[in-house]
Amino acid sequence: MTSAYQELSRTFQRLSRFGHLGAIAGVDMQTTMPPGGSQARGEAMAELSVFMHEVLTDKRLGGLFDAAQQESLNDVEQVNLSEMQRAWQQATLLPASLVEAKSLAGSRCEHAWRQQRPANDWQGFSANLKEVVKLSREEAQLRADALGVSRYDALLDVFEPGMTSAQLDQTFGDLKSWLPDLLQKAVAKQQQTPIAQPVGPFAIESQKQLGLSVMKTLGFDFNHGRLDVSAHPFCGGVPEDVRITTRYNENDFLSAMMGVIHETGHARYEQNLPKQWRGQPVAQARSTAIHESQSLFMEMQLGRSEAFLQHIHPQVVALMGDQPALALNNFIRQAQRVKPGFIRVDADELSYPAHVILRYEIERALIEGEIEVEDIPALWDEKMQQSLGIDTRGNYRDGCMQDIHWTDGAFGYFPTYTLGAMYAAQLFQAVKRAIPQVETLIQQGELQPVFDWLQQNIWQHGSRFPTQQLLINATGEALNPRYFRQHLEQRYLSE
Amino acid sequence: MTSAYQELSRTFQRLSRFGHLGAIAGVDMQTTMPPGGSQARGEAMAELSVFMHEVLTDKRLGGLFDAAQQESLNDVEQVNLSEMQRAWQQATLLPASLVEAKSLAGSRCEHAWRQQRPANDWQGFSANLKEVVKLSREEAQLRADALGVSRYDALLDVFEPGMTSAQLDQTFGDLKSWLPDLLQKAVAKQQQTPIAQPVGPFAIESQKQLGLSVMKTLGFDFNHGRLDVSAHPFCGGVPEDVRITTRYNENDFLSAMMGVIHETGHARYEQNLPKQWRGQPVAQARSTAIHESQSLFMEMQLGRSEAFLQHIHPQVVALMGDQPALALNNFIRQAQRVKPGFIRVDADELSYPAHVILRYEIERALIEGEIEVEDIPALWDEKMQQSLGIDTRGNYRDGCMQDIHWTDGAFGYFPTYTLGAMYAAQLFQAVKRAIPQVETLIQQGELQPVFDWLQQNIWQHGSRFPTQQLLINATGEALNPRYFRQHLEQRYLSE
Ligand SMILES: [Zn+2]
Ligand SMILES: [Zn+2]
Repeated sequence: MTSAYQELSRTFQRLSRFGHLGAIAGVDMQTTMPPGGSQARGEAMAELSVFMHEVLTDKRLGGLFDAAQQESLNDVEQVNLSEMQRAWQQATLLPASLVEAKSLAGSRCEHAWRQQRPANDWQGFSANLKEVVKLSREEAQLRADALGVSRYDALLDVFEPGMTSAQLDQTFGDLKSWLPDLLQKAVAKQQQTPIAQPVGPFAIESQKQLGLSVMKTLGFDFNHGRLDVSAHPFCGGVPEDVRITTRYNENDFLSAMMGVIHETGHARYEQNLPKQWRGQPVAQARSTAIHESQSLFMEMQLGRSEAFLQHIHPQVVALMGDQPALALNNFIRQAQRVKPGFIRVDADELSYPAHVILRYEIERALIEGEIEVEDIPALWDEKMQQSLGIDTRGNYRDGCMQDIHWTDGAFGYFPTYTLGAMYAAQLFQAVKRAIPQVETLIQQGELQPVFDWLQQNIWQHGSRFPTQQLLINATGEALNPRYFRQHLEQRYLSE
Repeated sequence: MTSAYQELSRTFQRLSRFGHLGAIAGVDMQTTMPPGGSQARGEAMAELSVFMHEVLTDKRLGGLFDAAQQESLNDVEQVNLSEMQRAWQQATLLPASLVEAKSLAGSRCEHAWRQQRPANDWQGFSANLKEVVKLSREEAQLRADALGVSRYDALLDVFEPGMTSAQLDQTFGDLKSWLPDLLQKAVAKQQQTPIAQPVGPFAIESQKQLGLSVMKTLGFDFNHGRLDVSAHPFCGGVPEDVRITTRYNENDFLSAMMGVIHETGHARYEQNLPKQWRGQPVAQARSTAIHESQSLFMEMQLGRSEAFLQHIHPQVVALMGDQPALALNNFIRQAQRVKPGFIRVDADELSYPAHVILRYEIERALIEGEIEVEDIPALWDEKMQQSLGIDTRGNYRDGCMQDIHWTDGAFGYFPTYTLGAMYAAQLFQAVKRAIPQVETLIQQGELQPVFDWLQQNIWQHGSRFPTQQLLINATGEALNPRYFRQHLEQRYLSE
């Protein structure tokens, strides 16, 4: 006889297989599809979402969860059961009408934003955003009621289960106490040595070769994945077939290369999620923040380190051609340059947290109902002025209209970027303790011990442990921003 | 209130959207997917098939069909209803266990064939094929019982509704009465003028440019489709996003180019299926044979005609480089060369029907139980000897193991190739009557009147009319092989 647990597993395996088709259709849409295909594709994807939502919110599942609780399950099965239940609860919490209304409002807002942003049209944009905020507050309220937490905390829980704004206030408060000063010092220090700008054009084909070569160095499994091109870089697909993308600029190979390194971090996590539980929730990535910790581990801890840059330098010169600005020292300075600016996605790792904390503070107040959409630009200006000394008055395009997250109603997502950066620094410190000679190994391109450590401590566990437990198991302690500080001081202030 | 017809339409629209995702995942699998993704992809696609089969065989549909018959429907809705019902009946006819067993046996047979063919291993192959034949006979019997026709006729009906072996016997019998003689004469005639072989390499990128340019000439809509590369050329995707592929050989650009022309014929049919009924069965291509008529119209009637070859010749020389073997006369001879050989997919249009008729005669006898799998090689040799004078004894690899159709149990498919060729010739004759100056127009690359004719007479109708009615409406008469004969005599025997 089939147990209730087995029936639930089968349902989630089905969902995973349908998700596979959606993921591949999504990748195709971003990388390959001709423009005229978008309406039919959108309809097909929406049909799939509706169907998957139906499967996930099937009333029969409630009884199966009750029955499965009584069955004798091993450790992993118990965790899997609770992850399945979590997914089911999160889905059943929201009435289909709200899900649909939010999806439509999000599409409308994002679609109009594509024209409104270049036109700097805050009036037009804010009208659509209000509808998204209204529906997101409704969603947050339903989640909050179910979880017994505040509205914003209920949204945070979607992206980083267990995270609270109380903890974020403390952690980000810590960052805010030392980061502005560190940033200022780093900028002053870098001003002492001028950085030469490499001169392109750098052939796209050579940039692609460089990307593939760096992916190989970072252990990307080309039998289960590939590199493509898209307007916005991403990591998509499924663990058995991970698709990463980058975009090329003939005058700036470093940006494409660092994008590839970042996405390779996401990809290696996906490719190494536990194979024995494939298709089950326990085999999925732990959270958005842990995912980002893996990409930032590769990009910030490894990729922009002196040791790694030394290792790949000969290859860079071989493929991009030799020129004074590609001398090793200048190449390293280039990759570690600190330059506060308007745009989050272009930010260096010292300015990045300021962008994130600003968005966190605004989106939390927005969801909690402490401010309204009209209040955003003034708050944005004020906070940008305080943290990075940048004036964005009247410049909505490079201010509060620069990102896509709010258009879709993905409130609660932004903090995961900086959580990921802090997790990554803490993990790398643990690697250093476990492998004292790690810098020499990196310089020699012998990265297998580092990958083994990640495999052992992060990748193989999927969603087996809550984030904080995973972090404690791996590093001996819960999130501690001091490792991030150490990393930044070491890289940007030491002589 | 929703009518029964509307509910049925909604169900078939859902099926079409799920089919969209399956089609794109299928294209990705052939063009893009890394090898390690194949197992998970196979599982996801199988899950989708099972689900779509469930939706299509839902018991509720029976009642809806009964109710919809009573509703007041316009002409198109009535046809759509009967096409829906046809799809439903064909699906419900077969028990899920048989569908699954056949799919598994087919996969096993095809998978092993990939190794067995190069190894010329008939013993190994025939053991698997027997299972496929056994299950195909069961399927044929169930279909035959439902339709009240013979087993093989019931399979034919899947690919060309309404076609019978009685009509095929007559039509193919006609072909057999004059084609061998025509072929012999054509070969003798061509031997009088030696054909020079163009010397490569021809850069893949230039071949791709040539393909794209020819697609443009043939009116391919790049906003709703694209050209990619795969091991076996195909036309896939959905009407809103049609993907065609070719494969490149550095020493033979003509084969890739003709492949592109052929698939563009399939693509234009798909791209121009009636937009107002999208997602409904009535908007789908009429049949496999009509589909092939559109590809062969482009390839054989247009693509290899002197007028068309004259038109594209300057472009060919510009992209492939000038050389004596690319002089216009030799280029035309090359494209119209007749050379009987072992392999169907490499055959010229004069030898092709012999390959198809041979397979038709064998597969019909096999399905009707008149012969067994063991009898195939001897029959193959005998018929190959008779029709093309080719000795395949002991050479299974280039004989009865060359194709993939039987491994999957697609019995009844082969005849559609030659039906398509005959339909295409008959359609082109009608075009000539409608547009007397058509050859001059083709030579000038002014193909719009030809496309308009196809749009008017074939594309826009989808499945609105039965094949023979479609043909009568377009050409004034039912299938008549004499137009195919005229076309071949004109091209290959006239001075
Ligand atoms: Zn990332
Ligand atoms: Zn074809």
